[in-house]
Amino acid sequence: MKLATIQNQTRDGQLVVVNRALTHAIAVPHIAPTMQAAIDNWATTAGLLAAVYQDLNKGALADAFDFTTAAVMAPIPRAYHWADGSAYVTHVELVRKARNAELPESFWTDPLMYMGASDAFIGAHDDIQIADEAWGIDFESEVAVITDDVPAGVTAEEALSHIKLITIINDVSLRNLIPNELSKQFGFYQSKPWTSFAPVVVTPDELDGLWLAGKLHLPLHSTLNDQLIGSPNAGVDMTFNFGQLIAHAAKTRSLMAGTVIGSGTVANQGSVDGSSCLAEVRCLEIIKDGKPSTPFMSFGDKIEIEMKDPSGVSIFGKISQVVTKYER
Amino acid sequence: MKLATIQNQTRDGQLVVVNRALTHAIAVPHIAPTMQAAIDNWATTAGLLAAVYQDLNKGALADAFDFTTAAVMAPIPRAYHWADGSAYVTHVELVRKARNAELPESFWTDPLMYMGASDAFIGAHDDIQIADEAWGIDFESEVAVITDDVPAGVTAEEALSHIKLITIINDVSLRNLIPNELSKQFGFYQSKPWTSFAPVVVTPDELDGLWLAGKLHLPLHSTLNDQLIGSPNAGVDMTFNFGQLIAHAAKTRSLMAGTVIGSGTVANQGSVDGSSCLAEVRCLEIIKDGKPSTPFMSFGDKIEIEMKDPSGVSIFGKISQVVTKYER
Repeated sequence: MKLATIQNQTRDGQLVVVNRALTHAIAVPHIAPTMQAAIDNWATTAGLLAAVYQDLNKGALADAFDFTTAAVMAPIPRAYHWADGSAYVTHVELVRKARNAELPESFWTDPLMYMGASDAFIGAHDDIQIADEAWGIDFESEVAVITDDVPAGVTAEEALSHIKLITIINDVSLRNLIPNELSKQFGFYQSKPWTSFAPVVVTPDELDGLWLAGKLHLPLHSTLNDQLIGSPNAGVDMTFNFGQLIAHAAKTRSLMAGTVIGSGTVANQGSVDGSSCLAEVRCLEIIKDGKPSTPFMSFGDKIEIEMKDPSGVSIFGKISQVVTKYER
Repeated sequence: MKLATIQNQTRDGQLVVVNRALTHAIAVPHIAPTMQAAIDNWATTAGLLAAVYQDLNKGALADAFDFTTAAVMAPIPRAYHWADGSAYVTHVELVRKARNAELPESFWTDPLMYMGASDAFIGAHDDIQIADEAWGIDFESEVAVITDDVPAGVTAEEALSHIKLITIINDVSLRNLIPNELSKQFGFYQSKPWTSFAPVVVTPDELDGLWLAGKLHLPLHSTLNDQLIGSPNAGVDMTFNFGQLIAHAAKTRSLMAGTVIGSGTVANQGSVDGSSCLAEVRCLEIIKDGKPSTPFMSFGDKIEIEMKDPSGVSIFGKISQVVTKYER
């Protein structure tokens, strides 16, 4: 099934069930008013929501409304836990190569993961508000999953069963703030201001034959100002699957329902199908030409991120955002 | 006023108003069912809660119950944002000195801050469940504040007005997992499993003459197995006040209501009144003797953290926790 959250003048928005074609939706306050409420009680709510989804796909629900013009929020507008991996190690290797740094051998076996700000996820069509272009504005196209309650010490194999919802995200990064933060060793903070979500999240069964062993085997398309930047396949060169990322996150503590785990920038070896962020494009230019020629994003730039099924139909809806100057 | 959250079989617990003496409490579902609901609407709820607090202190409320035996949760059992500073730079300097590393000059002007896991804060009397003693279990006694909505780009001075609640916490750390995580530069993750909170949070007016310019001027007592480890004054040697920490956190994005900001381990120059974590005790031993002699915590160890007003009365109630072995 497919779920979304739409604006209703509250911080958490209104949970809605969306049909497979992403054309119609229906509110389900009798099942769960919000996405967090749904995932808090997933054992109960999942079946009830799935029944609504079936009826909605049949066109059998009189209260359904047009989803194409709905004011979507992030599917989970504020979450309690957001951990972003860097599972495509080939991307990390490339970034290191561009600055003549060795990739530690352990990076192939021990996932990189940082804790991100989950209190204000932004919607698929929200502006990316940044105060200063000089901070080096970049997008990062990723796959993300939402879990139910995960016990500490879960194995990677067990963790797969805790993945309840899947979507794509844009992990906005401020590249020129990263070197200072990395040097302080306390992780990203100011350099990771916003994370945007596709309009809908879907259950794994919706991705039959495409969601395999904790990886989503489809190209992820990133388009900047109507120019394709890349379509790497998210199922290829993902060194750590989502089960491994969750097990890493849950090594010393449990994860509460509604935890969001990200894949990191999707990338394929050799970047044969392009990139999922400008930083990677610039690294390729540095390796080839000695210096980067592609600038980071400017105010007014439009970034679109989408994933389509093999028949060309959008699965999660499109992330389509414009970078604007933040003014207090 | 003083507020707490008690167990009621829900994830977020029941918000209660607690009297100044910490002996009685009363539920306030007509004002706000949970701490998050209260802080979400603080402009409305603060005055209503304060009126209840006044009546409660007068002993005028028939529905009040005994707070001394109440099953407290963390005041905000799950929060959307938890950022921990390292504001006592003298502590960082000492830790560096113990490993013969220079303290970068910038550390005195640019706060260290990491994003922590906020989805499962634990209560003042909850066990600290850890799977393996070899991870190097330590406490860190800190001051923490809870904000309302903070706009991006807030100044340090403006930020002070966004501090609505104050308390003390135990930022549990797994010291032997830290070196690997620091070397990966993505920040703490597995090495910071749990954060425990004192039973109550208080509004700044409750700390008249003690809460000055974003610092709390009182000793913070840490006692391990009934032996005092330290009582450094939280108002002394705090290089960055809470206004500066919040401004740092809000440089590139807004912070949503209910954001928790921590001070980092409270420490005074020269550790004259002892320490707020075992790591600092061990660093002092290394500097003096060439090697540490104090071990990290073991299963069964009891850690107590408390702050008292000048007349000796506990302000936030006592954190009193036992380390236990986590078994799935």
